[in-house]
Amino acid sequence: MKKVTMGSQTLIYPMPVTLVGANVNDKPNFMTVASCSSANVEPPMISLAIRHNHYTLKGIRDKLTFSVNLPSYDLVKETDYCGITSGSKVNKVEVCQFKVFYGKLSNAPLIEQCPINLECKVIHILDLGSHSLVVGRIEETYVSEDCLTDGKPDVNKVKPIAYIRIPTAQYQCLGEVIGKAYIIGKELELKK
Amino acid sequence: MKKVTMGSQTLIYPMPVTLVGANVNDKPNFMTVASCSSANVEPPMISLAIRHNHYTLKGIRDKLTFSVNLPSYDLVKETDYCGITSGSKVNKVEVCQFKVFYGKLSNAPLIEQCPINLECKVIHILDLGSHSLVVGRIEETYVSEDCLTDGKPDVNKVKPIAYIRIPTAQYQCLGEVIGKAYIIGKELELKK
Repeated sequence: MKKVTMGSQTLIYPMPVTLVGANVNDKPNFMTVASCSSANVEPPMISLAIRHNHYTLKGIRDKLTFSVNLPSYDLVKETDYCGITSGSKVNKVEVCQFKVFYGKLSNAPLIEQCPINLECKVIHILDLGSHSLVVGRIEETYVSEDCLTDGKPDVNKVKPIAYIRIPTAQYQCLGEVIGKAYIIGKELELKK
Repeated sequence: MKKVTMGSQTLIYPMPVTLVGANVNDKPNFMTVASCSSANVEPPMISLAIRHNHYTLKGIRDKLTFSVNLPSYDLVKETDYCGITSGSKVNKVEVCQFKVFYGKLSNAPLIEQCPINLECKVIHILDLGSHSLVVGRIEETYVSEDCLTDGKPDVNKVKPIAYIRIPTAQYQCLGEVIGKAYIIGKELELKK
């Protein structure tokens, strides 16, 4: 198979689309982040890359707390809006009509309309060049009751948004299930 | 909307499924990682969370280089296999019939069958508890020529795998496009 070189780029997908929240100058603000990942399991931690000059980062650095909210498809416009505007200029909560609530932490604003909400405390901030890599410990997880099936979050009800950067920056739904993890690979184990 | 608390967990999806490669004891080995994300843009960097005791991590720590390979749907069995077995016990390259090639770095094995391959040099390793958060600078990107459209990687040809951990650990395809990023949110801007 012929390979073509494409220089140095972070070509990886799909990425989860999140709305990261913080209180900045005592007001809740949210920004769209699609560079969010699990960073540790015991205890549960998350990492996010945020460009240094972002308004939300100011609040995260100031209070050392933040939230990660997972929007559903039906919030795709609001989600995109929070990525193309700055809280230094507009009140995103007002424009998007977000209902904000707080949990355990006093400075991690959570969006009621998002089916999943994580409250986080900052553990590390790594300065990597253009971005700060923020690592946070998850203090509590909130799930909208109508997104549960048998008491567990149901991805078909949560309807998370996948972000694709190349060739066109776009949001996609999830499609067909192609295999059970930790099971489908056993077929190869038998062939050994 | 009623919220239910779920304790502390990294409930976020979809995550991209990758095969992370390293030379361990002078042989190429690959492990499945679904905690991989962009970490910086200028210069391009990537982060991955790997449990401390993983065999591949030994090679990454030893040589300070690694690869990130993006498998397509048709490699879902091989991808899962690399997540449920250890290179300390089996030769995954042989079982999965991976064709391995090298680019700029002598210790970052790349999988020819994967449509996208990144070669990385380690910049930081953060010990977070159960996992090491590895941050690498991307030195080069390779794309299979048959996954390009007009010279750009085409997500419909790359066919990346999305990982869902809850409620059932499974792999999913991407579905319908629900909006253009940096455009669809402008509708709200006008409503302001």
